[in-house]
Amino acid sequence: MDIDKANKEATEKMIEARAVLVGLGKAKDVIPGMRENLLLHAGPPITWERASGPMRGAITGALIFEGKVRDEDGARALVENGEIELEPCHHHQSVGPMAGVTSPSMSVYIIENETHGNRAFSNLNEGYGKVLRYGAYDSEVQERLRWMEEVMGPVLKDAIEASGGIDIKALLSEALHMGDEGHNRNKAGSILYLKALAPHIARVSKDSAVAAQVLQAIGDNALSVLNPVMAACKVMADAAHGIAGSTIVTTMARNGTDFGIRVSGLDDQWFTAPAQIPKGLYFPGYADEHANADIGDSTITETAGIGGFAMAAAPAIVTFVSGTPKDATNATMEMYEIAFSEHRAFTIPSMSFRGTPIGIDLRKVVETGITPRVNTGIAHKEAGVGQIGAGLVRPPMEIFESALVAYAEKYDI
Amino acid sequence: MDIDKANKEATEKMIEARAVLVGLGKAKDVIPGMRENLLLHAGPPITWERASGPMRGAITGALIFEGKVRDEDGARALVENGEIELEPCHHHQSVGPMAGVTSPSMSVYIIENETHGNRAFSNLNEGYGKVLRYGAYDSEVQERLRWMEEVMGPVLKDAIEASGGIDIKALLSEALHMGDEGHNRNKAGSILYLKALAPHIARVSKDSAVAAQVLQAIGDNALSVLNPVMAACKVMADAAHGIAGSTIVTTMARNGTDFGIRVSGLDDQWFTAPAQIPKGLYFPGYADEHANADIGDSTITETAGIGGFAMAAAPAIVTFVSGTPKDATNATMEMYEIAFSEHRAFTIPSMSFRGTPIGIDLRKVVETGITPRVNTGIAHKEAGVGQIGAGLVRPPMEIFESALVAYAEKYDI
Repeated sequence: MDIDKANKEATEKMIEARAVLVGLGKAKDVIPGMRENLLLHAGPPITWERASGPMRGAITGALIFEGKVRDEDGARALVENGEIELEPCHHHQSVGPMAGVTSPSMSVYIIENETHGNRAFSNLNEGYGKVLRYGAYDSEVQERLRWMEEVMGPVLKDAIEASGGIDIKALLSEALHMGDEGHNRNKAGSILYLKALAPHIARVSKDSAVAAQVLQAIGDNALSVLNPVMAACKVMADAAHGIAGSTIVTTMARNGTDFGIRVSGLDDQWFTAPAQIPKGLYFPGYADEHANADIGDSTITETAGIGGFAMAAAPAIVTFVSGTPKDATNATMEMYEIAFSEHRAFTIPSMSFRGTPIGIDLRKVVETGITPRVNTGIAHKEAGVGQIGAGLVRPPMEIFESALVAYAEKYDI
Repeated sequence: MDIDKANKEATEKMIEARAVLVGLGKAKDVIPGMRENLLLHAGPPITWERASGPMRGAITGALIFEGKVRDEDGARALVENGEIELEPCHHHQSVGPMAGVTSPSMSVYIIENETHGNRAFSNLNEGYGKVLRYGAYDSEVQERLRWMEEVMGPVLKDAIEASGGIDIKALLSEALHMGDEGHNRNKAGSILYLKALAPHIARVSKDSAVAAQVLQAIGDNALSVLNPVMAACKVMADAAHGIAGSTIVTTMARNGTDFGIRVSGLDDQWFTAPAQIPKGLYFPGYADEHANADIGDSTITETAGIGGFAMAAAPAIVTFVSGTPKDATNATMEMYEIAFSEHRAFTIPSMSFRGTPIGIDLRKVVETGITPRVNTGIAHKEAGVGQIGAGLVRPPMEIFESALVAYAEKYDI
């Protein structure tokens, strides 16, 4: 078994994947395997019983949005009796930030990997404050979701199509030269996204008031591009998945209860353990005791070599996730220890344009005892509240150890 | 004479000045002292005879634009016989990049310093390629100028007014955290500017095709915001001017022949010497021998503590102006040697949010032998060609020495 050769193939595929935003469609129309009674969610598989507050809140909110229930009790009943099924986004070529709950009627971005042909999907970003992805679901959240679906969605769809596609990989390369790390800081990326779409939005909108609203919504939300970026990272990671003998991690995801990983050479098996509470900066009035365990598919960014791995590109992020600019550089330096390679498209100007660490090697994680660094938002542990901070977290070491044991068994090493 | 006290007052005024883009108007309607037979130009005073190729080209282009001449011979005749007069932008609360030629019918940005009440003006940015500011003036240039005046200008005017004003100081603070230095690299600033204006552009445009064109033009031009930024720096520097006893430099400007400075405590006297050829990276096919001497009012950015002084914030700029990211950091470190203070609004994340060096102190320049570092574009030395590269340049030391001599005489030290 030439592990290095397999890992090289996996990592090269991640690097070479050219992720382009090609369209927008309803989840039920475009996501493979999506169906009327299915909700997708972040992280590894979960049941209602084991789901955290924000996950239950987001499931409730999505079912209210779909017109199937009126409250959390209703949601619980439908999920527990099996009328509504829950499956990971990752089982459907999809990713969603935080709770990641995606229901059949929601619009999703369609990202195509023009190098290898695979596709991935992600929902639209709601912005800040009370939002579904953090488990809020009241009328304010619903109104916003409806506006996104009825007003913004159609304009975005037409604008993306009129643009002929937006190269998200190129956008990310540029954003990393503009102080983003692509996960918690997408300030530059989001306005690069606005720049790419703005003329098309003006052209395709039925009236100028709608164009103005959509331009404002995208411009005001410094996470507008996070969801296309996550789906872009997903096509990169998926391209690297399923290579016999490879120890490269191709999924890292959390459902608010468990942190799970999957490995290129280990088929679709999840390795999971309890997710941890992020360390970071809280909004006024909140502290560790209010925080939910780590949640979301957005760790796909670190899986693809950005986010916490590209911290050195984003020294200003420490005002948001805590620490000093030196810590940001150290974070990237540490990640080189567990990465198989260095990216060619994603580079860090302040490190003389060195490529970001790419391809988390299971062997190196276990050998060095260094787990991946992940940037993340922090959700309140109760349903209905929302975001209370942002910070840093690491996956539990035991999932890498279990994966390595499984690898040794499968490949008889 | 308490020089430090005077310098503190000058520098604090520069730091405290809150520069807001409040409107757009025709030069002849809004710039104090502008008149039908006047052209403003970059740098210290100049005659046709001593003017460089790009300056002559820009004068010619502006007079063609005004319908007064058809070619360079015509322009020369009008200027030499005194029918058309030339005066520095700086004598009219104005600044213009490169040749900086501003004619009565051109639209200019209006920037107001909300702290001290003074105003400054700058023309619109034409984008790249063959442009008036680099001395090109053919039909392509004229067509672009007319489109800017007839189509983009009115939309921008209405959009800026509808926005209620755009805080350019705040925009710059943010852009410095996004890899800009605010002079040669305004990538982030220009899309932040687009973000601020986009909804208003959509709303005020007569039709969606025009809105789309204007959004595209602003978004595609990574220097869109340079001119408002320069006028913002001008209100900051002007606020610091005229303080008795202050040795702070309040103007640095080049007309393509001479580099000139003015000093806060030395009234409106210019100290000039021949401008130098920038060192940098040339576009394919060009080299030092094609380069014009340093030209433009854009050194107002360094005067106000950004540009070459904030190089450490913009490591990616070295791909454009030459050097390594380490050189960029060193440039900022060197400028602390000649600066009176550190900025509070303009900070550098990678230096633990240290403020940029602000307030060039004549005494320190002469004592240390360190002249200010300036980032700049490079113009072809012949009229009509345009930009051929970008790089770094320093003003001649002798102008600081002459200014210090004048200071000693005036204040009898």
